[in-house]
Formats: sequence, structure tokens, C-alpha cells
Amino acid sequence: MTTNFYAPPSALRGRRVVLPEAEARHLRTVLRAQEGEEVVVVDGEGGWYRARIDHLTPDQVVGTITEQREDVGEPAIEVTVGLGILKKRSRFETFVEKAVELGVRRIVPLRTRRTERNSIRKDRLHSVMVGAMKQCRRSWLPTLTAPQSPESLASASDAAAEFVCHSGDDAVPLHRAAGRARPFDEALVLVGPEGGFADSEVEAAVAAGGTVVSLGSRRLRAETAGLAVLQTLIGPAASERVPN
Amino acid sequence: MTTNFYAPPSALRGRRVVLPEAEARHLRTVLRAQEGEEVVVVDGEGGWYRARIDHLTPDQVVGTITEQREDVGEPAIEVTVGLGILKKRSRFETFVEKAVELGVRRIVPLRTRRTERNSIRKDRLHSVMVGAMKQCRRSWLPTLTAPQSPESLASASDAAAEFVCHSGDDAVPLHRAAGRARPFDEALVLVGPEGGFADSEVEAAVAAGGTVVSLGSRRLRAETAGLAVLQTLIGPAASERVPN
Repeated sequence: MTTNFYAPPSALRGRRVVLPEAEARHLRTVLRAQEGEEVVVVDGEGGWYRARIDHLTPDQVVGTITEQREDVGEPAIEVTVGLGILKKRSRFETFVEKAVELGVRRIVPLRTRRTERNSIRKDRLHSVMVGAMKQCRRSWLPTLTAPQSPESLASASDAAAEFVCHSGDDAVPLHRAAGRARPFDEALVLVGPEGGFADSEVEAAVAAGGTVVSLGSRRLRAETAGLAVLQTLIGPAASERVPN
Repeated sequence: MTTNFYAPPSALRGRRVVLPEAEARHLRTVLRAQEGEEVVVVDGEGGWYRARIDHLTPDQVVGTITEQREDVGEPAIEVTVGLGILKKRSRFETFVEKAVELGVRRIVPLRTRRTERNSIRKDRLHSVMVGAMKQCRRSWLPTLTAPQSPESLASASDAAAEFVCHSGDDAVPLHRAAGRARPFDEALVLVGPEGGFADSEVEAAVAAGGTVVSLGSRRLRAETAGLAVLQTLIGPAASERVPN
């Protein structure tokens, strides 16, 4: 099988795994799996399992775990990205999909002075995230929190490295700031909506320990900036754990 | 004005600039510009101009150049990315938009063993690229070539650094490969379509001087891989030239 399957921890008991209905249907009707075949199942909380299919019915697949590992496909650092809720939902979705691939651990939609939209489609984003987790063969499903303000996110964070994307004279190039902060296990990144952060939001993040960073001489779209930061932070710390 | 405008070199003569019709309409009807205001115009070939608006008619805007600079918003290295033509056109478009923002210089749609689509919508991609160039305040419009094979692209390239994204035991982590290759002025990156490159394509690229690189333990979608490589190569070499 070229994709992983997702079963929450509650679907796993001892050596037995029962795939949720949608996953079972996909395995059966799209991939035409047969009894006796092997699949990889992840539980979204770091659990990675190889399982042999025992029973296939129209809406249930039951398997036996033959191998178990932890944190397959996970980066060595945990990065939280707070991104301003964007006007175009499709751009936030693109961010979420690719952020999961690039190894984000937690996504926080931000309500800021300049966001023009207050809500996200949580179910839709959750399903994009599950799809990306399976496709890229991670074993953690990143957390998607409820929308909050950048001030509350920054003040509640105890990450060793905190970066606020904001152009300005006092901004440090991200590469330099990240290099100075290394090594760190945990990082927080704040990216504003289309219009960027208000000065008071940047000041609050700095007061909470954040470093103002710039991403170079091109003005990146908010979602592009979020992805560029993730690659810059996680890329060099790529996990040695090899999937399947 | 928060965006740049685009006028090809033919629209510039001496200190006079005549904006193309679509740009003129946008400036007039959406942004409600007035005579005497200043705008930034780029010519897509590195030319950056500040211009004062002299005349505004329903479909023409004529201005006088008051300041001229070169290569504003451009990175210090020229990166060509060859990306397999993707099944979903929207994914190729997402790549093109964000590649322009991240500083790509040339995009080559690749026809490979495993591409399932042979053509691109050149006009549509061109307009995405122009939009991204203006939005991110670059002065070069990256080149979009006709589709070609990875073999012909690799053999025609004389870039000092050439990278082929392909998972496998002999793949070097991209960060390490890029570090070893630095400093370089020019780089070529090859990324396969959804199913990756065939072995023979990888061998041809290696024979032409390419290094096989991996992007870590997560299997990235093709367009995500292309963007991750761009940020890894260009990010640390971010230009010191500051836009507007």
C-alpha cells in the first residue's frame, strides 16, 4: 500500500486494530485490499503499526498488529505556528496541508487586529490534516486549536525559541535568529494575516520573549511565510527516523 | 500603493512609462489613483522604477520615472526548478505562485515517465506569475519554459549545483548537499511528478552532474518538495536589496 491508514488510539486494543468506517471503505473499494495483506496504520499520537488484514466486510476492517514503532516520520523539534485567519479559506487550507507535510506539531488560527474573518471550518481543516498525515507518512496528527489572539498564544507559550514574522528595521533575518536559538526542542512562530500584525501585537509578542524576524527582501503571502519558516526551522533538524 | 505594477521593457522609453491596459484599469478603477500620485513599476527583467502619474484615461496611464533601480527584491542566486507536470492543475499553480514568492528564477514543467498529463495552461500560469511578482515586489518575472524531459534539462544545464529529489539509500539530506555545494550562483533542482522519477531518469540526472537529495523522513507532495527546496537554497542567501 502506498498510503498509511488512520485509526485513533481507541480503535487499537492489544494486537487488534479496527479501522474506522471511512478508512475501511477506502481500503476495500478503492484499493481493493484482500485478507492477508499488510497495511500501515498510524494513531495520530505517535503510534505506528504494521497490521495484517484478518477480516474485510463492507464497512469494517479488522487486523492484527505485527510490528509497532513510535514517532515514525516525526521531526526532532516541535513547532507551533500561529497564523492569522485568512480571507480566502482555500489559502488557509493550503497552509494546513503543507504545514503537516513539513512537520508542524500545532496550528493555531489567530484572530488579530487585521483579520477580516473570525472563524475556520474546523471539520474541513481536520480532514485536510488527516489526509496529509497519512499521505506524508507521519505518525502524529498535529493539533488544530480554536482561534485565539496572538497575545494569548505568546503569553501562554514556554517554547525556548519564539519568532514573530514582521518586516521592520529591527527584524533579524530568520536564518540568523534560528541559528542563534539552536539547539531548541520547541519553537513558536507567529505569522499575521494578509495585512500583517499591528505594532501592539508585535510588541506583546516581543514582551513575551519573541524575536522579530524577516524572511528576506520579498514580501511573502502569509501562508507562504508560514511554510517558509517551517522549512527553515525543521529542515535542518530532519528526523533520522525513516518511515516504512 | 501597496502593490507594484508591471510594464514590459517595451512600455518604457526614456523617462516615460505607459502602463498596459489591464494595469491601467486596475490602477484607475480599483485603486482610484489620481494624477500626481507615485507608483512602483517593474519591468520583469530586473528594472524597478518609481513613477509619477501624469495622465489617467479610461484605458491608459502615462507616468514619468523619478527613480530607477535594478534587481530589487531578487535573491543572490538563480535557481531553476524542473517540476513534473501534476495531475491537478491547481497544485501546479500553487507551486508556481509560491515559487515566484520564494525567489525562483526559472520554472520548467517536466514530462517524465510517470507524468499523467502532458500540457500546462501557459497563459494561466503566466498570469499567476505576474500577480505573484507584483505582490511580492520582485523585479524579475521568472521564466516559464515549454515542457521538456528531465534528461534534456539536466544535460543542458551548466549550474554549479544540481539536485535531484528522490528517496533512496544513496540520497544525501538536502541541507548537507546544499551546504557542501555553497557558494554557488546558480542551481538546478529536479522534482518528479506524484509518482516520483523513474530510476533511469535519476541516473541520467546524476550522470549530468546532479546529486540525489532527500528532504527528510516525511514523503512530501511534489509541489511541497519543490517549495521546500527553494526555501532551503534561497533562504540563507536572501538578498540584501530591500524593496520599496
